Amino acid sequence: MHRDLTARLFDGPTMARLTDLADLDPALVLDEFTTREAVTALAEAEVIVSSWGCPPIDEAVLAAAPRLRAVIHAAGSVKHHITDVCWQRGIQVTSAAWANALPVAEYTVAAVLLANKQLLRIREDYRDRRAPHDWQRGYPDAGNYRRTVGIVGASLIGRRVLELLRPHDLDLLLHDPYVDAAEAARLGARPVDLDELCAASDVVSVHAPELPDTHHLIDGRRLALMRDGATLVNTSRGSLVDQDALVRELTSGRLDAVLDVTVPEVLPADSPLYDLPNVVLTPHIAGSLGRELHRMAAAAADELAHYTAGRPFAHPVLAEAVHRSA
Amino acid sequence: MHRDLTARLFDGPTMARLTDLADLDPALVLDEFTTREAVTALAEAEVIVSSWGCPPIDEAVLAAAPRLRAVIHAAGSVKHHITDVCWQRGIQVTSAAWANALPVAEYTVAAVLLANKQLLRIREDYRDRRAPHDWQRGYPDAGNYRRTVGIVGASLIGRRVLELLRPHDLDLLLHDPYVDAAEAARLGARPVDLDELCAASDVVSVHAPELPDTHHLIDGRRLALMRDGATLVNTSRGSLVDQDALVRELTSGRLDAVLDVTVPEVLPADSPLYDLPNVVLTPHIAGSLGRELHRMAAAAADELAHYTAGRPFAHPVLAEAVHRSA
Repeated sequence: MHRDLTARLFDGPTMARLTDLADLDPALVLDEFTTREAVTALAEAEVIVSSWGCPPIDEAVLAAAPRLRAVIHAAGSVKHHITDVCWQRGIQVTSAAWANALPVAEYTVAAVLLANKQLLRIREDYRDRRAPHDWQRGYPDAGNYRRTVGIVGASLIGRRVLELLRPHDLDLLLHDPYVDAAEAARLGARPVDLDELCAASDVVSVHAPELPDTHHLIDGRRLALMRDGATLVNTSRGSLVDQDALVRELTSGRLDAVLDVTVPEVLPADSPLYDLPNVVLTPHIAGSLGRELHRMAAAAADELAHYTAGRPFAHPVLAEAVHRSA
Repeated sequence: MHRDLTARLFDGPTMARLTDLADLDPALVLDEFTTREAVTALAEAEVIVSSWGCPPIDEAVLAAAPRLRAVIHAAGSVKHHITDVCWQRGIQVTSAAWANALPVAEYTVAAVLLANKQLLRIREDYRDRRAPHDWQRGYPDAGNYRRTVGIVGASLIGRRVLELLRPHDLDLLLHDPYVDAAEAARLGARPVDLDELCAASDVVSVHAPELPDTHHLIDGRRLALMRDGATLVNTSRGSLVDQDALVRELTSGRLDAVLDVTVPEVLPADSPLYDLPNVVLTPHIAGSLGRELHRMAAAAADELAHYTAGRPFAHPVLAEAVHRSA
């Protein structure tokens, strides 16, 4: 992992758990596998604890690590470092994707509640007026009662968003090609195709994986299907949305957006997305930030405890699931 | 109620339910009880459906309404129109306070999640920088993991906030003089005195009623107890907080705030609360706004159905509860 990540990821109690559970040197943090230090460590290692910045664990790494049996990833996606040869070798893999899903879902739920309430717009409006105003007359369609929220993708994050939105008086729609009607019903949502979801929702929130098939999944045509005044929330990957088309809809004021991801990241300084009053733009921080890293570290320690006790991982990553996930 | 409120409150289906259930004239909307039209209506009325703007139902009104048995309030507090003589006459009273609590709790939960994540601060920071930045280094204490949230008052709203915060990894504290340890535990919170709550919380959210005893409940001393960087959320009444002391803490940048209520409302145009970057100020819109009015109207229709079927109200308001509630 990135060398400066370790101290932020593992708080004292969690690092103490790791060193209690295994022969683990807290000072041994690798961000490449070819140094002398790395080669020495790999020769003995039975488990790799990885996180953001882990290089690919390829054939050469595996050849240098004859005793390696498991990779415990203290972060979300394993796509960037778990290669096909890891699966072929039968390496057990677990990730803290479930732990990283929680803050993204929290960000999304706050964004949905704010968007429906038009809270930030009203804040700006009050700042401009500084005078009595009939807010009921000004915002007759505001509020979180009987709004429609469309969730694109029943990923870990999408499912958590549905779970957190269920206590509210909202109609929940779901588009996911891998989810049938019965499962959607269990998730509290009505399954619809993506065009219908875009056309019917007050908020469309994207939680699909970045795959060749999902490039510009929300394209100009689907943005045009969205209702006047609707909000697009994107916490997944910028490539899933046709950003040029989105900027046009946002600049005209027809749509609102809450964007944690863009193409590129960081946006050029002259991007209108920074300044548009109907856009909340954040720099890819919906996932684990600050103390939320400690949750992923605790998840890794839990999995190490499972491993050392000879039990299966609580959150195993399976080869067949990786290819359709983020 | 206010005459222009009716059309916003009752959508078509709900008004149709009312007229199906009772001999009710949709055009008969009173905002005073002394007009000829009002006196004629009161002579026959068995039920008053009230909302914001209803004048006090005092001895003179009751004398003019010999058949009156119930008041169904399609809004929150009944303090301003249900007088002591109503209770003495045995008038049955119900309110949609539970329905009005839901949007306030939603606003609060969104505010808590945003405050802990420092989302709006990061948004401004990104807008200023427009360049790569190590956000993990910049915000090492951000996030909703193992934060402490203190709820002041186990009102309908305070209880709903606790319920909605329970799925998150937060430590919940509660101060309410009427709630014992067992009840607090059922609500998922640890009961503490108010000083401890202020000192221990990352977010303090005020949900207590406006009473002589609660004037400046959050005074300068208690604000000073709050942690550096903590957030005060007030969706109850401005008088509960010493606003001058709060403005000092906000101007210095030591505390953040999300304020839906102030003294006075509307604030003078030169109030620093409008412009401080660490303040989210809204014009008393956390309660039912826009389509959320329809929920209170539906609640009133439900109660009218209970009444006409000879059943007790689902949400009766009792005299003894009014004196300690908002």
